[in-house]
Amino acid sequence: MSDRVTLVEVGPRDGLQNEPSSVPPAERARLVDALAAAGLTFVEAGAFVSPKAVPQMAGSAEVLSALSPRAGVRYPVLTPNWKGYEAARAAGARDVAIFGAASETFCQKNTNCSIAESFDRFVPIMEAAKRDGIAVRGYVSCVLGCPYEGDVPIARVVEVATRLYEMGCYEISLGDTIGVGTARAARELVRTLKDVMPVGMLAAHFHDTYGQALANLYACLEEGVRVVDTSVAGLGGCPYAPGASGNVATEDVLFMLNGLGMETGVDLDAVIEIAASISQTLGRPPASKTARALLAKH
Amino acid sequence: MSDRVTLVEVGPRDGLQNEPSSVPPAERARLVDALAAAGLTFVEAGAFVSPKAVPQMAGSAEVLSALSPRAGVRYPVLTPNWKGYEAARAAGARDVAIFGAASETFCQKNTNCSIAESFDRFVPIMEAAKRDGIAVRGYVSCVLGCPYEGDVPIARVVEVATRLYEMGCYEISLGDTIGVGTARAARELVRTLKDVMPVGMLAAHFHDTYGQALANLYACLEEGVRVVDTSVAGLGGCPYAPGASGNVATEDVLFMLNGLGMETGVDLDAVIEIAASISQTLGRPPASKTARALLAKH
Repeated sequence: MSDRVTLVEVGPRDGLQNEPSSVPPAERARLVDALAAAGLTFVEAGAFVSPKAVPQMAGSAEVLSALSPRAGVRYPVLTPNWKGYEAARAAGARDVAIFGAASETFCQKNTNCSIAESFDRFVPIMEAAKRDGIAVRGYVSCVLGCPYEGDVPIARVVEVATRLYEMGCYEISLGDTIGVGTARAARELVRTLKDVMPVGMLAAHFHDTYGQALANLYACLEEGVRVVDTSVAGLGGCPYAPGASGNVATEDVLFMLNGLGMETGVDLDAVIEIAASISQTLGRPPASKTARALLAKH
Repeated sequence: MSDRVTLVEVGPRDGLQNEPSSVPPAERARLVDALAAAGLTFVEAGAFVSPKAVPQMAGSAEVLSALSPRAGVRYPVLTPNWKGYEAARAAGARDVAIFGAASETFCQKNTNCSIAESFDRFVPIMEAAKRDGIAVRGYVSCVLGCPYEGDVPIARVVEVATRLYEMGCYEISLGDTIGVGTARAARELVRTLKDVMPVGMLAAHFHDTYGQALANLYACLEEGVRVVDTSVAGLGGCPYAPGASGNVATEDVLFMLNGLGMETGVDLDAVIEIAASISQTLGRPPASKTARALLAKH
């Protein structure tokens, strides 16, 4: 299983937007830049959403404008609707992400529209992005379970993922939003999707709510998935808060991938330093076991 | 991969002996009994070791004598030397465990003797246990890495495990004592050992220091391992203490096994309650993500 894995660092976006305290844009830009310097080639830099709804992502345009280009590094931003897309384009974004859901109820609660309506919103974004030469990543949330509906039929995930694929997304990120999935379900999902689209277009985006993320990722790697979304310090989940459901930590995934002999081009020690620094900013220890273990050793 | 998995609950021994505060024997007995009532059929009840060296295990005879027999439930205790064995037998133990190491330096530091000398100590225990009709489990520590030596050659693990097997241990528990192993190494170890002894005699005993335990267990399950050592609430590792290296939590393993459709006979909800209770006794939240997530939901 020796191979190359691309990590998509989502801490500065999916992580920080779920933290109770907001980090100012200038500091977020420093975080993004440090992650890129550590070898991460995809660093989600922000979200173009209502600052009232998500104050943690306010000033994402400032984050983008503060970043100096680095060769081979992309800074995608979340643009859930047309307004967000226009703002991201105006801010110079070259990579955006749209956010679909495999659960009707989650889609309604999260984006205030049906799944069908969410695709109506995506169409003009995809068309504009094609004209603008902007790459679009497609997220699918709730792929292994929904907080409202419970089990999500695999056919529904395939339907949504296929539609994003056919619309022209360059990658489909499969989100276990509430971390309830286990390895067999993760593996089955990938196996099913492989029949519909190239496995190289699939990314695994797992939250570690029940501690299952690494086992699930291992099963996905065995199925050929080679893109993994991770969050430095496990941002988005606080080790003190009961039930907080952060993204799987970049450090924990790196520790595993290094052990599996898979290349990432990412420097684990540098990521640990960044994890310590951003955790200090947030006033708590990293949620990542690898970070805590390595920091205790130093 | 539908199958039956036996969990060996080590929280009351391996877990509690690594906690900073001691739990009195009567309370430990209640913990052991509650775990058995939750469906765990092997519950490590204590260690017959020097109370000066390991005060947390003082009164293990009291723990055993406080337990009422339950059909089909075994209460193994750790007996690292002859003195411990005699005390355990006198206390009525029917299952004991001996503790070997795959690392020479760890063996010296931990038991003050060489690996060869440790086997000299095991011989009279094995002989007496055979006469006494007492079952002996063999632990091998440092199977995926040593805190002093770093990498541990797989051949050394095979050597130690084989010797315990040939001596008559009914099961060989492979301990990743410092939690540095990753899935490929865990898988390779099991693959190699399967050539020497039946896979049904192997148990996986993983610490979750770097968050790798579940992924490693998943790899071992794929290789046919069906016995897993776990610790309720992830006892032995404190979520507040940086770098604390507890056993993998019973709840996290159960969540995975339930998702994989593997039967354990253990009631997850009951284990969560026990985890909450013993964590309250220790004055901190459970180290298990599943316990924290489920307790937050309730």
